[in-house]
Amino acid sequence: MHRTLSVASSPVRDLLALTSRPEVISFAGGLPAPELFDLDGVRAAYDVALRDRSVLQYAPTEGNRALRSLVAARLTGRGLPTSDVLITTGSQQALTLVATALLEPGAVVAVEEPTYLAALQCFQMAGARIVPVAGDADGLDPAALRSVVEAERPAMLYLVPTFANPTGRTLSAARRAEIAALAEEHSFWVVEDDPYGELRYRGSAVAPLASISDRTVYLGSFSKIGAPGMRLGWLRAPEDLLRTLVIVKQAADLHTSTVDQAAAAVYLKDNDLDAHVARLCVEYGARRDAMIEALPGTVPVDTTWTDPDGGMFVWLRLPGDVDTAELLQEALRHDVAFVPGAPFFATTPDHATFRMSFTTNTPDEIAEGMARLAKVFR
Amino acid sequence: MHRTLSVASSPVRDLLALTSRPEVISFAGGLPAPELFDLDGVRAAYDVALRDRSVLQYAPTEGNRALRSLVAARLTGRGLPTSDVLITTGSQQALTLVATALLEPGAVVAVEEPTYLAALQCFQMAGARIVPVAGDADGLDPAALRSVVEAERPAMLYLVPTFANPTGRTLSAARRAEIAALAEEHSFWVVEDDPYGELRYRGSAVAPLASISDRTVYLGSFSKIGAPGMRLGWLRAPEDLLRTLVIVKQAADLHTSTVDQAAAAVYLKDNDLDAHVARLCVEYGARRDAMIEALPGTVPVDTTWTDPDGGMFVWLRLPGDVDTAELLQEALRHDVAFVPGAPFFATTPDHATFRMSFTTNTPDEIAEGMARLAKVFR
Repeated sequence: MHRTLSVASSPVRDLLALTSRPEVISFAGGLPAPELFDLDGVRAAYDVALRDRSVLQYAPTEGNRALRSLVAARLTGRGLPTSDVLITTGSQQALTLVATALLEPGAVVAVEEPTYLAALQCFQMAGARIVPVAGDADGLDPAALRSVVEAERPAMLYLVPTFANPTGRTLSAARRAEIAALAEEHSFWVVEDDPYGELRYRGSAVAPLASISDRTVYLGSFSKIGAPGMRLGWLRAPEDLLRTLVIVKQAADLHTSTVDQAAAAVYLKDNDLDAHVARLCVEYGARRDAMIEALPGTVPVDTTWTDPDGGMFVWLRLPGDVDTAELLQEALRHDVAFVPGAPFFATTPDHATFRMSFTTNTPDEIAEGMARLAKVFR
Repeated sequence: MHRTLSVASSPVRDLLALTSRPEVISFAGGLPAPELFDLDGVRAAYDVALRDRSVLQYAPTEGNRALRSLVAARLTGRGLPTSDVLITTGSQQALTLVATALLEPGAVVAVEEPTYLAALQCFQMAGARIVPVAGDADGLDPAALRSVVEAERPAMLYLVPTFANPTGRTLSAARRAEIAALAEEHSFWVVEDDPYGELRYRGSAVAPLASISDRTVYLGSFSKIGAPGMRLGWLRAPEDLLRTLVIVKQAADLHTSTVDQAAAAVYLKDNDLDAHVARLCVEYGARRDAMIEALPGTVPVDTTWTDPDGGMFVWLRLPGDVDTAELLQEALRHDVAFVPGAPFFATTPDHATFRMSFTTNTPDEIAEGMARLAKVFR
């Protein structure tokens, strides 16, 4: 007999398999647009990296030294002074490492609600109890967090403060300061997951929580600004905790692919990633606008939605007693797809919610997909 | 406060850092010989794989379909009928996935003694209690295992049955049958870790435990026959357990690098890996012979050592009350290194033991290194 795990496969990943018919215009995924990958630049970087025989060998758990320096310099340049990072096999691995290092079975993890569901899975698998914290258009509510902290004594707060998955919301600077102060006062860790922060289409950057509190583990990723297939993420944490996380990673996979790391280091050295990200922002911004502009003519009156300044997602709530999981079946009959919102809730789901991604379709495709959706909501 | 993990960094990996001075002839590592990597073939495979934009995208957790088929066909061809595998980020990840899926905190894991120490770390991190089982020149002793099983009710037996790390020993066919029968009778899982099985320099292959019992999780790797830097392993398990392990992997890192997997699939399709492995066996076999032949003139009388038919390691025990960790300091002063045996023991270490790897030095370098070692033991 093997133990029965209390978690199931990700409903979103399972759904993606069902919505992959080529005739479906899918707003379900959380994928970067493949036509915007810098394939030539990346292939050239692998070719350069693979002139050095040592990229085929085992390597230190911490990660490629050049890549760590380049990432740390990039974070520093963006206003988060960073002396070192741990390279991870995507940010998803960083979540598992943090859960292993910081959570005893039965520990409490506070999360914004709704939140990234693969994080929920990861904390559940670590045996943690998840306690949701309410938020609004400005992100997680510090007053609600204070109540949860005083009642539940969480070991960790997990959040995506900038262009959150699934809501697209950004936590305000004032709230970041309040949350950082709470973390200091009550000695819990803040896990600041920031895969989308560079994908900003309007307004100006808000300083990361990690820049105002040392009780923060900051997670970054190459997946949304570069290429997710390379599975490269990074983790910034206070020195003691970083050392512990290196040991946990050693047991998890010894180290991340030496080849992918070396190629990423070459890519960052030989290319202007900022310019690439600027191109992404122009394209994605236009797609965001196309979706937001089409919404009033698509969804029922009294539907509410977020108005994200960046990232990949719009989060919506339909009026009345509806279940978006049922509506999805109808949508698929019209060759269009979204993600029902229920799986993003840690405890009590709101079945009238759903998530739409605007990154993988062009403005024209978005217009067509929204026209199909309008028939579903009619 | 974060929890204090009860495991430390790998003493072998820490040691490797200390022995990396270029003037040191190191028998300490467990690395493949870099000069034997097929760098040109691998670089060409990445170049072909990177003509397809989809290798930069997210991908299914199970792994690249072509790679899974090629690996399954290869296992089947080697006498282990296999319909599917899960691709892992090296075999090390497979160990962590198996520990997460099969071990409740406090579960018992039986291991051969001595054994691969990163496996010990991994099971300790999962909160398991490790119980060692004695063995001899023919590998793990089934009678000793029966006693442990009856007394301790392990959830899992972990072993490297072919050219074990650190001993180089191979479990006999008769013992494999006995152990498989015990696993069926007492419903524990056998985790058969087989990174070295194809590196055989004499004698003929012994069928894997997985070919005689369904209660087996079989782990394979590209690291010793291809390139460890690509971090590619695979896991074969009964269908139900495989499905559970896919879910665990989803939380661990979503999936293994799409790029590395696609490159490996291209490599296996366009190259003759069997011919490459045959070349490795010729080279490594000569290195093995060089080390074994030099031993009588190097170590003290009454030293014992294993005489491996393949793999990478010779395991030795010095006579008398000595500590090989102290001798290592003396060895480093003579610019030669080995690994003290103590960390490979789950419970009570035998400080007179040590491990020597013969793969990363040529026969001439081995002769020189052994001459330096002779001065240490004089």
